[in-house]
Amino acid sequence: MDSSFKEGDNLLPDYDVIIIGAGIFGLATGNYILEEDPSINLLIIDKNSGPGMGNTAKSAAAFRVYFTSNTNFILANSSIDFYLDIQKKGIDLDIQMVGYLWLESEKDYDSKVDLLKEIRRRGVEVKEYNTSELRKILNINIEVSNTEFGKLLGLHDVYRGLFVPKAGFLSPDKLVNYYFNNVKRCGGQFLFNNEVVEILLEPPDKLGVPGEPFPWQDKVARGVRLASGTTISSNNVIVAAGAWTPLLLDKIGIDAHIKPKKRQIFSIKAVTDELRRLLLIKEFNGIGMPFTILPKPRIYIRPEFGEGAFWISYSDDIGRPFEFDEDPIPEEDFYINGIYQILINYFPQFLDLMPHSMWAGYYAYSTIDKQPVIFSNAGIIVVTGGSGSGIMKGDAIGRIAAALYFEKKYAELYGGYRFDTTALGFENRNIERERFVL
Amino acid sequence: MDSSFKEGDNLLPDYDVIIIGAGIFGLATGNYILEEDPSINLLIIDKNSGPGMGNTAKSAAAFRVYFTSNTNFILANSSIDFYLDIQKKGIDLDIQMVGYLWLESEKDYDSKVDLLKEIRRRGVEVKEYNTSELRKILNINIEVSNTEFGKLLGLHDVYRGLFVPKAGFLSPDKLVNYYFNNVKRCGGQFLFNNEVVEILLEPPDKLGVPGEPFPWQDKVARGVRLASGTTISSNNVIVAAGAWTPLLLDKIGIDAHIKPKKRQIFSIKAVTDELRRLLLIKEFNGIGMPFTILPKPRIYIRPEFGEGAFWISYSDDIGRPFEFDEDPIPEEDFYINGIYQILINYFPQFLDLMPHSMWAGYYAYSTIDKQPVIFSNAGIIVVTGGSGSGIMKGDAIGRIAAALYFEKKYAELYGGYRFDTTALGFENRNIERERFVL
Repeated sequence: MDSSFKEGDNLLPDYDVIIIGAGIFGLATGNYILEEDPSINLLIIDKNSGPGMGNTAKSAAAFRVYFTSNTNFILANSSIDFYLDIQKKGIDLDIQMVGYLWLESEKDYDSKVDLLKEIRRRGVEVKEYNTSELRKILNINIEVSNTEFGKLLGLHDVYRGLFVPKAGFLSPDKLVNYYFNNVKRCGGQFLFNNEVVEILLEPPDKLGVPGEPFPWQDKVARGVRLASGTTISSNNVIVAAGAWTPLLLDKIGIDAHIKPKKRQIFSIKAVTDELRRLLLIKEFNGIGMPFTILPKPRIYIRPEFGEGAFWISYSDDIGRPFEFDEDPIPEEDFYINGIYQILINYFPQFLDLMPHSMWAGYYAYSTIDKQPVIFSNAGIIVVTGGSGSGIMKGDAIGRIAAALYFEKKYAELYGGYRFDTTALGFENRNIERERFVL
Repeated sequence: MDSSFKEGDNLLPDYDVIIIGAGIFGLATGNYILEEDPSINLLIIDKNSGPGMGNTAKSAAAFRVYFTSNTNFILANSSIDFYLDIQKKGIDLDIQMVGYLWLESEKDYDSKVDLLKEIRRRGVEVKEYNTSELRKILNINIEVSNTEFGKLLGLHDVYRGLFVPKAGFLSPDKLVNYYFNNVKRCGGQFLFNNEVVEILLEPPDKLGVPGEPFPWQDKVARGVRLASGTTISSNNVIVAAGAWTPLLLDKIGIDAHIKPKKRQIFSIKAVTDELRRLLLIKEFNGIGMPFTILPKPRIYIRPEFGEGAFWISYSDDIGRPFEFDEDPIPEEDFYINGIYQILINYFPQFLDLMPHSMWAGYYAYSTIDKQPVIFSNAGIIVVTGGSGSGIMKGDAIGRIAAALYFEKKYAELYGGYRFDTTALGFENRNIERERFVL
């Protein structure tokens, strides 16, 4: 394989920075690089025909400030505050502050008492609902452990509802377009419908003899090769390719410690009066049903008001392979055996209903600690590992990656927090596993 | 894919433990499980026709106690002491205590002063040789930075030799056979010529209804499926499959944070008087040439007295893909461009000589910190990440994995050291990168 450019070493690189991936991480990173220095000649390349059309588009686009890890809290909290702020300033992101409602078994509630103290100490509001309130508002079955199916499936009774108001969802398209338009306005270039198949490496000090790069030479990124064969040169390559990241990095021997994990969403239309009522309950937030999470297994229900539907999902773990398909197929059986069986025990409103639509995508799943990954190696900045919460952390991640690009020690996050630009790398990573994962 | 067994839940499992991989890690682990409890019904499965025929056999089988990481030091030191002890007791491992000789540039030597103090504080002997001694004994070029090629290639003069006597190499076959025979003597079973293609998972508490395991059920290993289709059941599966490990674990969504990295050895026959003299220099160790490492790039030369040859290698990093081939092909170009170009500047004795044989294998390369990986998840114990120093740490690794199998908090290593059985997992891993890597 020919990894070098044509002859002529003193050619200027085509771009100052190439960003691979126009998802939320790539766009936010490009945005903050150009905000700092609009003279930078920046290109964002994406295999899709427009911005945010990879896994960003397939996301439930939910957000919350309710994390056990302080790092996750800071990343999400500052990003959400930023999104709320720009919406207040007139950029409609279609933010729905429905809150998250965690339905807890007694055992899980007890195990969270200390974590809840810590979370509240950060200023995060968590309201508690008892079973009679929950039964009344949601019209759910609280006691499921003693029914025939509940016994068989080992289900837990609902003991308490933990409601986090600073949470909800937004329109990923609108958020993506905000950054996309900003990048364009600052002079950033886009190349859509083009897939990067290889990051090109060259020695930082070329000898100018045939056969370079030699195995023993240091190597740094000097551009990319597209599927068409075209090469584009740049002294800075930023990989923000989400679940596609290992496909590019494995080829040059860099491990980002992320694996693609298939995730699926099933949409159930609110076709009955009961479901329409559930969708629009006002008791928690004045808007409608909160993003609701069942006791273990943690099936979640995300209201979709525009469609008049519920998006329902479950994140399976051991047994779900790390594998990758360009076009992953959602599994109807997964709804029937993985979700429906459990769901109807708590929410009998969903009895006999099947999804009217479903889709599948990939988490860029950060396998060390489920926290994002940002590091620099060989002239490449890697920005990935959203692990299903990329949108809600996107603004902070973009600022950190941009600060790393400018070789700053700290990034200034929205709201004034200073964040060490090496903290999400591996040399200094402080492994602190997130315990509230969906 | 059908991941379940035939009907009948109360069938006894076929084995108490299945170990996948009869390389050094799998054999040592099996050995220490059976030494602790010979009543355990243990099966070791390997795709090759005998023990130690994967990458263990392709290794340079060198060992040293010279590491910056204290963990690596303990693992290697206790294993080497054990190997020396059993050889003293009459089990010939063909140990050649030739020592390691690191040829250092002034800059590298200066950067190591503090590390050397720490290493000597552990009781590791490091002798220093000055340039005139090195020139006289090895007949090498000390000054290479100012020659035409040295300038072009950016080579560094040799400034000092650091000789570590407690180092050398042994016969991987003989070591493997020691553990293999021990396992057999203790009643361990072997299944060769059979490849495990899948680790089978089942819920720990089966419901006994069709369709299990459901996505939301916990899952633990309950056996393996062979390429032939046969399933073998066991409540404990130990994956010691080296570079093959991710192929098995990706299928069930477990990341061991290792990647296969191709490594190659080129053998040059000592065909001239000068090379024969070099091979048998007695000044360092009374035996012959030490395992010798050039200044950066760290090309190494390992004497092979039986063959009358030098095994020469270099471990390239960025640009060497993480990829996997059942039968990797060594690259003659790698010798010419990656090794020869540099080697002859220091050792002109190798001028014009090409390899008479060469081979390639894979490091199970531990991408976090280049230290081994031992952890337990879903009823599976994973033992991998030798990162090119699996043989020299094999005995300690076997004892730690066996202790983890018996759910002990600490393993007793040879020589009396107690080692936390979770220290090489990821929950408690203390990331301390090894700085002396080959």
